[in-house]
Amino acid sequence: MISTLGKTSGHLVAIGGGEDRTSDLDILTQVFALAPGDNQEVAVIATASGIPDQILPDYEAAFTRLGASRIHSLNIQSRQQAADPDMVRLIEQSGVIFFTGGDQLRLTHVMGGSATLQAIRERLAAGAVVAGTSAGAAAMPGTMIYNGAAADALRKGAVNMTFGLGLVEGLIIDSHFLERGRFTRLMEVGASNPEHLGVGIGEDAAVIIHPRGILQAIGSGHVILIDSRDLASSNIAELLMGEPVAVEHMILHAMVSGHGFDIEARRYLVADALDALLARDEPR
Amino acid sequence: MISTLGKTSGHLVAIGGGEDRTSDLDILTQVFALAPGDNQEVAVIATASGIPDQILPDYEAAFTRLGASRIHSLNIQSRQQAADPDMVRLIEQSGVIFFTGGDQLRLTHVMGGSATLQAIRERLAAGAVVAGTSAGAAAMPGTMIYNGAAADALRKGAVNMTFGLGLVEGLIIDSHFLERGRFTRLMEVGASNPEHLGVGIGEDAAVIIHPRGILQAIGSGHVILIDSRDLASSNIAELLMGEPVAVEHMILHAMVSGHGFDIEARRYLVADALDALLARDEPR
Repeated sequence: MISTLGKTSGHLVAIGGGEDRTSDLDILTQVFALAPGDNQEVAVIATASGIPDQILPDYEAAFTRLGASRIHSLNIQSRQQAADPDMVRLIEQSGVIFFTGGDQLRLTHVMGGSATLQAIRERLAAGAVVAGTSAGAAAMPGTMIYNGAAADALRKGAVNMTFGLGLVEGLIIDSHFLERGRFTRLMEVGASNPEHLGVGIGEDAAVIIHPRGILQAIGSGHVILIDSRDLASSNIAELLMGEPVAVEHMILHAMVSGHGFDIEARRYLVADALDALLARDEPR
Repeated sequence: MISTLGKTSGHLVAIGGGEDRTSDLDILTQVFALAPGDNQEVAVIATASGIPDQILPDYEAAFTRLGASRIHSLNIQSRQQAADPDMVRLIEQSGVIFFTGGDQLRLTHVMGGSATLQAIRERLAAGAVVAGTSAGAAAMPGTMIYNGAAADALRKGAVNMTFGLGLVEGLIIDSHFLERGRFTRLMEVGASNPEHLGVGIGEDAAVIIHPRGILQAIGSGHVILIDSRDLASSNIAELLMGEPVAVEHMILHAMVSGHGFDIEARRYLVADALDALLARDEPR
């Protein structure tokens, strides 16, 4: 299996969008709690957004409420800025790195191959938490979806994919998943190559990706998993572009807060099983 | 298993809505071809629709093009009309009975327990084809969904169900399925009772329900199957109304035209397997 799961020691938190930023801050509280104990500086990266000035204040206020020692709103809007040593330094000193929503293609286009992205990977490996919402979640894996209307998907070529930020492998992430009915997008991806787990995150829901490839759902919504590993057949290789894709046998799970999934073992974990596994793996 | 599959000798055709009515008539052609050889009279029932006068002409023109000997547009808008012996007589002489779209609750409210519905059941048992689109498809089984926004579904109680027309058992039908992202609706139903197969029909797609419980997809779209029979766990019985439903292990298929499914055997049928089964069961 192609996977870098287990190589990092920090946590990723992929949020489906629409997380509460002004009320009980459920998900953001759990993001902040995963920061290394000695580092409560937060870097917020709004590169994906076309309106960073409108969304950054909410995050600054939220992380301030949560007790962040410093908050750096990084203004990375160009590849030149993504290479700026000052930006790199701010990332290097942060324990929490947060990607806002917007357009994941803007995020990867600006940050792909940059010194700031490399610094983020190193921070993750060193134990920092890297979180992202909506586009910031979708962009996390090595490969991402950046376009494709759900109503058109499951037709060959309807979903557009490219390289993501490469922070995790072995899965693909879709956001706003239940609200926008995106099941067909992950089914099309799964038919094209059944190896990689489809992770569809609803709004105000998130998944913590623990270092050893254990997923943990948090928040008020759902995390849907589409596991194509046991796909029995599909016509996708025989089709012309735009023709409908047949799928025989994918496995579907819906996780709620407290439930989990072991990616390597392809095993659903109810709350007790998840707690036992996390207690064993990560004694605190 | 609770099922009346196999008890009828006619065909049901459930259409996901948006079927072509003016161009190549692909699905309607196949509906008409399933009529008994000696009876090409068509009864169109627009009870579900709030605008029957606007939609009936399209169907009259389409079935005329297909060669119908007579077309009866039945004006059944009240329970009194549903009991009208003249309506019953027109149904009794038709080889094709077609339910338009609209609101499935209007359809069942007006026709439930009526003499016309009983006549339709008897025509189906005697070999007629009964087809319906959108609401007319959703209402076919013994139990139907009549409300529930997909974005809210998979939360306990979000999907509203009641008795359907009772033309088939063992499955539940949802229409406009891919276009409206309704996977969550059938997942909620499957968690509440995993016995019954979820059949989600896309627009300009349909499923022929052959007398012995063999499904056959037709049309340009998809027929999605959600098979919950091997559900491993769900929290649904422990939840308060509105709380998110967890689901461990449902099986997902996407059928395209020419593919099928054996409901009793829970077996996906690629085109060759379906053709062989239909040739064996129904020599023509």
